[in-house]
Amino acid sequence: MSTGFFGDISKIPFDPEAGPETLAFRHYNPDEIVMGKRMEDHLRFAVCWWHSFVWPGGDPFGGQTFDRPWFADRCSDPMEAAKLKADVAFEMFTALGAPFYTFHDADIRPEGESFAENTKNLQTIVDFLQAKQDKTGLKLLWGTANLFSHRRYMSGAATNPDPDVFAFAAATVKTCMDATHKLGGANYVLWGGREGYETLLNTDLKREDQQLGRFLNMVVEYKHKIGFPGAILIEPKPQEPTKHQYDHDVATVYGFLKRHGLENEVKVNIEQGHAILAGHSFEHEIATAAALGIFGSVDMNRNDYQSGWDTDQFPNDVPEVTRAYYEILKAGGFESGGTNFDAKLRRQSLDPHDLLFSHVGGMDICARGLKAAATMLEEGLLTEFVSRRYSGWEHDEPKAMLSGERTLEDIAARVDAEDINPEPRSGRQEWAENIVNRYV
Amino acid sequence: MSTGFFGDISKIPFDPEAGPETLAFRHYNPDEIVMGKRMEDHLRFAVCWWHSFVWPGGDPFGGQTFDRPWFADRCSDPMEAAKLKADVAFEMFTALGAPFYTFHDADIRPEGESFAENTKNLQTIVDFLQAKQDKTGLKLLWGTANLFSHRRYMSGAATNPDPDVFAFAAATVKTCMDATHKLGGANYVLWGGREGYETLLNTDLKREDQQLGRFLNMVVEYKHKIGFPGAILIEPKPQEPTKHQYDHDVATVYGFLKRHGLENEVKVNIEQGHAILAGHSFEHEIATAAALGIFGSVDMNRNDYQSGWDTDQFPNDVPEVTRAYYEILKAGGFESGGTNFDAKLRRQSLDPHDLLFSHVGGMDICARGLKAAATMLEEGLLTEFVSRRYSGWEHDEPKAMLSGERTLEDIAARVDAEDINPEPRSGRQEWAENIVNRYV
Amino acid sequence: MSTGFFGDISKIPFDPEAGPETLAFRHYNPDEIVMGKRMEDHLRFAVCWWHSFVWPGGDPFGGQTFDRPWFADRCSDPMEAAKLKADVAFEMFTALGAPFYTFHDADIRPEGESFAENTKNLQTIVDFLQAKQDKTGLKLLWGTANLFSHRRYMSGAATNPDPDVFAFAAATVKTCMDATHKLGGANYVLWGGREGYETLLNTDLKREDQQLGRFLNMVVEYKHKIGFPGAILIEPKPQEPTKHQYDHDVATVYGFLKRHGLENEVKVNIEQGHAILAGHSFEHEIATAAALGIFGSVDMNRNDYQSGWDTDQFPNDVPEVTRAYYEILKAGGFESGGTNFDAKLRRQSLDPHDLLFSHVGGMDICARGLKAAATMLEEGLLTEFVSRRYSGWEHDEPKAMLSGERTLEDIAARVDAEDINPEPRSGRQEWAENIVNRYV
Amino acid sequence: MSTGFFGDISKIPFDPEAGPETLAFRHYNPDEIVMGKRMEDHLRFAVCWWHSFVWPGGDPFGGQTFDRPWFADRCSDPMEAAKLKADVAFEMFTALGAPFYTFHDADIRPEGESFAENTKNLQTIVDFLQAKQDKTGLKLLWGTANLFSHRRYMSGAATNPDPDVFAFAAATVKTCMDATHKLGGANYVLWGGREGYETLLNTDLKREDQQLGRFLNMVVEYKHKIGFPGAILIEPKPQEPTKHQYDHDVATVYGFLKRHGLENEVKVNIEQGHAILAGHSFEHEIATAAALGIFGSVDMNRNDYQSGWDTDQFPNDVPEVTRAYYEILKAGGFESGGTNFDAKLRRQSLDPHDLLFSHVGGMDICARGLKAAATMLEEGLLTEFVSRRYSGWEHDEPKAMLSGERTLEDIAARVDAEDINPEPRSGRQEWAENIVNRYV
Repeated sequence: MSTGFFGDISKIPFDPEAGPETLAFRHYNPDEIVMGKRMEDHLRFAVCWWHSFVWPGGDPFGGQTFDRPWFADRCSDPMEAAKLKADVAFEMFTALGAPFYTFHDADIRPEGESFAENTKNLQTIVDFLQAKQDKTGLKLLWGTANLFSHRRYMSGAATNPDPDVFAFAAATVKTCMDATHKLGGANYVLWGGREGYETLLNTDLKREDQQLGRFLNMVVEYKHKIGFPGAILIEPKPQEPTKHQYDHDVATVYGFLKRHGLENEVKVNIEQGHAILAGHSFEHEIATAAALGIFGSVDMNRNDYQSGWDTDQFPNDVPEVTRAYYEILKAGGFESGGTNFDAKLRRQSLDPHDLLFSHVGGMDICARGLKAAATMLEEGLLTEFVSRRYSGWEHDEPKAMLSGERTLEDIAARVDAEDINPEPRSGRQEWAENIVNRYV
Repeated sequence: MSTGFFGDISKIPFDPEAGPETLAFRHYNPDEIVMGKRMEDHLRFAVCWWHSFVWPGGDPFGGQTFDRPWFADRCSDPMEAAKLKADVAFEMFTALGAPFYTFHDADIRPEGESFAENTKNLQTIVDFLQAKQDKTGLKLLWGTANLFSHRRYMSGAATNPDPDVFAFAAATVKTCMDATHKLGGANYVLWGGREGYETLLNTDLKREDQQLGRFLNMVVEYKHKIGFPGAILIEPKPQEPTKHQYDHDVATVYGFLKRHGLENEVKVNIEQGHAILAGHSFEHEIATAAALGIFGSVDMNRNDYQSGWDTDQFPNDVPEVTRAYYEILKAGGFESGGTNFDAKLRRQSLDPHDLLFSHVGGMDICARGLKAAATMLEEGLLTEFVSRRYSGWEHDEPKAMLSGERTLEDIAARVDAEDINPEPRSGRQEWAENIVNRYV
Repeated sequence: MSTGFFGDISKIPFDPEAGPETLAFRHYNPDEIVMGKRMEDHLRFAVCWWHSFVWPGGDPFGGQTFDRPWFADRCSDPMEAAKLKADVAFEMFTALGAPFYTFHDADIRPEGESFAENTKNLQTIVDFLQAKQDKTGLKLLWGTANLFSHRRYMSGAATNPDPDVFAFAAATVKTCMDATHKLGGANYVLWGGREGYETLLNTDLKREDQQLGRFLNMVVEYKHKIGFPGAILIEPKPQEPTKHQYDHDVATVYGFLKRHGLENEVKVNIEQGHAILAGHSFEHEIATAAALGIFGSVDMNRNDYQSGWDTDQFPNDVPEVTRAYYEILKAGGFESGGTNFDAKLRRQSLDPHDLLFSHVGGMDICARGLKAAATMLEEGLLTEFVSRRYSGWEHDEPKAMLSGERTLEDIAARVDAEDINPEPRSGRQEWAENIVNRYV
Repeated sequence: MSTGFFGDISKIPFDPEAGPETLAFRHYNPDEIVMGKRMEDHLRFAVCWWHSFVWPGGDPFGGQTFDRPWFADRCSDPMEAAKLKADVAFEMFTALGAPFYTFHDADIRPEGESFAENTKNLQTIVDFLQAKQDKTGLKLLWGTANLFSHRRYMSGAATNPDPDVFAFAAATVKTCMDATHKLGGANYVLWGGREGYETLLNTDLKREDQQLGRFLNMVVEYKHKIGFPGAILIEPKPQEPTKHQYDHDVATVYGFLKRHGLENEVKVNIEQGHAILAGHSFEHEIATAAALGIFGSVDMNRNDYQSGWDTDQFPNDVPEVTRAYYEILKAGGFESGGTNFDAKLRRQSLDPHDLLFSHVGGMDICARGLKAAATMLEEGLLTEFVSRRYSGWEHDEPKAMLSGERTLEDIAARVDAEDINPEPRSGRQEWAENIVNRYV
């Protein structure tokens, strides 16, 4: 029985000719084969709980704009509200045909007065979700713990100066890993929104690094203990809410993992908006993670290029999304990861149907990006150009330089003897950029 | 005999009461004792060759503004020009009383037609500088190779797709390390201005990382081979000239060093302007390097906070410089490193005396910053506050959590059993910030 | 009778030797004479209501951290809460010795269910504040209407597509002007946080400009109608909460005023943080407003230079504040305007005493800046240098060019005839920057 | 007879099926009718002289990379070089089939030792170009004077502290207006790259504003004097090379024009990269200019979103270009203006064919954007949505509010009497954004 929140809703069809006010996919066709695989299995879409069902539409200068029946002003029993919210969420997931969803513990269960109450609430809801998963076939892409909203975490969770906060956070992560494992989650994510500092003047960087390193090692140990088969993912972000966050960007996270012996145990969940805030392109972060062997999953959204905060908008730029999937496909595509919409409506988009139009639009954009990227790879114009560009390194002497058989002195002697004086060759950037435009 | 470039110049005195048009230090007094050490030995000032003696005053929209007798339009013999430039440079170093200087090979020797000619020119000038060092007592803080200006490096030096460019770069670094060693340099620096990419579309990130890792390992091997006692330093920068540079910031460089087994062999030379361009504060980069054990030296300057390119201005903000030296002193001060002025005149500051006023001003700013930072540390208000803030971690159970004796399950059980529910405590940021203002 | 919120509090004294944990001014001495005027009369400090007494410590990723007895979770009667809040506020204003305060209507009165209820609530509180003003001698620097927090304003107030929102906003401004007038406010401020757009795709720029122009004209007409003697001030901001705000920066506001015939009726209230977000320095915005004849007042705070949102931190950089007051003093100082602390604690600064330490610190910083700026002006090194730099324009022919007596042809003929070929002269920027450092 | 620079070149054809290494337009078909007009007449493409034929490939960290036969190192006679450069330029313009070109005086003529020599050189080349125009049918979109590269302009042209520089600049502009008029130019452009300041400490803002206002008035007076029928255009830019430029963005230029009585005489030439550097989107600047009645022309390029300087890359983002032409078409399209490629190769794109591929790609991108924008307008989904959104203003009472017939008191009385309490309505931003994606 439907909640009626979205009116008379059913699964949104694929219909390339649909009109502008019709809910239909014009590009996302789950069963279409792309590079030998179904689009659904490539993209592995997930819809997140927090932006669509928890966020009230507030911003730093204004309060709630959304009017949802499960919000506290309209539903006084928190557990009933949580269940109603779950009902509506699954109606939306089902209508969209997304195979996965994602959540923080705080999104799905009422906040309790204690750790014990939080845990009990979580378990109740996990059972509720389990039944829904069984009924719908929907799966959990990843779960995570919200270690940033409650005031106890204001100075950090794992990196808090107070060891009791570290303990509370660790205990909470255990319960969230248990919940994720029970629900068959494909991954477990950690985003350290409060792991960082507001001012160096009151902060001990080195100690906090040790705390964070130990915390993550415990997570990995517990994963193995319980036999959780999914990947552990860290989500980098440079700042906001914290002035400086330790998991700044992919390269910084790599250094952290390597320092704590975790580079083979943990991967990254890369968000477009976080890449932009860190001064990188989305494709840069993906390509870097792939090159370093730690690419895991993506949070798909977009950041306004003129705003300096996390705008979490729905993706709508086909060329940019194409460049992202191009790097993902070059890296072999997703394993346990997927495309999670960490995207929220603008706070003026009040209507339930805005939730649907925005996700449909975003899924279509991703489908277009995936197909364009796949054709680029299949035609191979750029990959061949890149291979040719580095082909000089295939010869013996360059190989010897790279493998460690030559010293600075050896090379200097050869340059001197052979009067090596290389002429530069065109990098053909504009040509390459226009090649991409053949596909988008 | 003086070149007369600066008119009738002699060593600039310390005179706190000097008038606004008098060349005098009002704060920098080399022999003053700060925390038990002479100011000169704390600050280890160096003056760079390139900005003051090589740069013609051009910018992307305009050409030469400076009129120097050693420039090509006024001096047709390149080697004579190089020697005249060195004469003037040493006159300035001496007048300023800076104990050190720094250079790229391309700053001091004429560009040749071949590697062999470059090497010969370099050796000629190194002998010339050696004699000047002997006469004046000036020392070399570090030398480096310019692997970015010549068109052969347009697509990278160590990371070039063409192995011949890698070879040319490697050979050149060997000659610069030899020169630095001969001149008794305290460090050798590498700045990879072209090590990065303009577009991912024509770039193989993983291969270029291997090239860069091998290159740096060769440098370290050669250092040990020749017994060079100084430190090898990498200078991070996020971009400019390249769209993305691999040595993005301190944390990225750390990851790179760790990946290539070099974290105990190489340190960083941190520039204020590069920190700003990377979205960090100067003190952040210093503190991060110290926490990671790779702090080496600083390039002192300042970047305009409203400009998105490398403005390389002289430092003139006492509070900012104080925060930087506070982190440096907390980390134990410089070992082989020092304070190098990687700062240039605005192109409208045409007069020779502008060179002197700018350096005198910058040295005074640093002296004020050092003294303020030292007093902060000696009074210890902030360090004590920080210790108290983390003091909970001194107890046994927190120690056990941090040392690896506790698992997530252990901790969850304890949180549950003891109903741990920590209350946040004020971080007192505004108080701490105002404490700093007691000293500046 | 004290509320006890701040403990046993009394007026904070001027005591330059006070220790780090003592609440005392080390630099702000209201009666000290600077350039012939009392410091208090120069600085005209105001403390704002919203950050210190209304904001709960939330940010986009976390909720309330502050625990205040007048917050809804501790005080269930909204009008009693409003009065308790006012009691505490006046205790703080009095302790600080700030002569002024500032508010939005929504800060001081409970939100009603209708315009009529809002108005009634406002009037009740205005009477309450009037009594407090009479008792303490405190004055209102300016009042303003909050036309951005309530969801009705989500798409703009004056620029809303719905004329009913325009009407509601206009009616509200009338009540706030009445309140400000009754309380003897020195100015009335408008900040158009929602006057702008989220996307051009749903926006009619030209129509919204007409709406905003008409709205402001009504405000000015009403000011004259009621005989309000204060200035009408617009506060520029480039964005946040809105993606693009129409009152982008001082130069944009000037164009808007001129377009609507208001350039002699309305001035600007300039905030440091808004200047930074617009890509300007604080002193740039002040100097621009002064040059255009529309300088009114300042919102004193500081924005984190590494964050892209409005951080509203307390000022603590003496050199920056000095440059700001230097421009203010050059422009003749404040008339009706003043120095309003639009600054908030970091959300980790939980304690009541943090409110006091932060304001004391900020007031001391301003006092230092004012004194340094005054000495700079009195000694006149820079003003003389600037005069000399432009002195060529004092001759007859340049005067004729500037006054409109010469055409392009006249000038071209003279340049040709006299072979005019000017040599550039040094701008001495570094010297000038170091002159400032003599004073800070 | 061909110079051979581009090899065996002829007019590049329209061929949608052309392969990746073939020079052909896949989208730009000059004669195709779009909204009742030929594409060529809509887009009015122009190719600029400076980036492609003058710039040597240097950047702040490296020198010349391009090897062109007319550069000083290969051609010792400056006038011969200028003519050879013009021959090659016209070969490229013709091959591309662009109807227009653009230049600065300094791009086309050798720099002389005096104003008289500059003028003579310019006249010689103008005659040379005139003959080429006659032969090819190519036209001049606009001419302009380079008042920023020569060292005499380092402290400004019109805003220089030295009136002789003002005079030299004015005389130069006269000659460039004469040249533009003689060549039948459709517009005359002024870009004030040095009109601004490096530091307020040595600057008199108010005086410089007067100088700039007088200068522009002289330009307008001279236009009328000689009967030049084209538009006078100012090109806004926020900074670079200057720290702060007076013609910051469209809104700032509007205020300047209005202040000096020029808002009906001068329009703007808007560059994508300058918009981005000012913190705006390209479409924002166009829409703002249209709303203010000062839209003139565009400099088409793109700025790297991760770089803080003027990258002047070729456009290659269809959605962005579509949004730009959507605003242009809504404003009625170009009158005298056009689409000028102010875009340069990356300095690694060494080959002559890179010049062709880059322009062909850019022209195709613009053609795609124009066609998408035209279909958007013709289908009218968004324009209808916007009309409906503001339709409440069509009623009598809102009209009365807007027209000035209502006062704040009138409106407040009505809100009170009718208990007006508007409910917000969805802005449907995501729906609108996805509508755009139907077309690109």
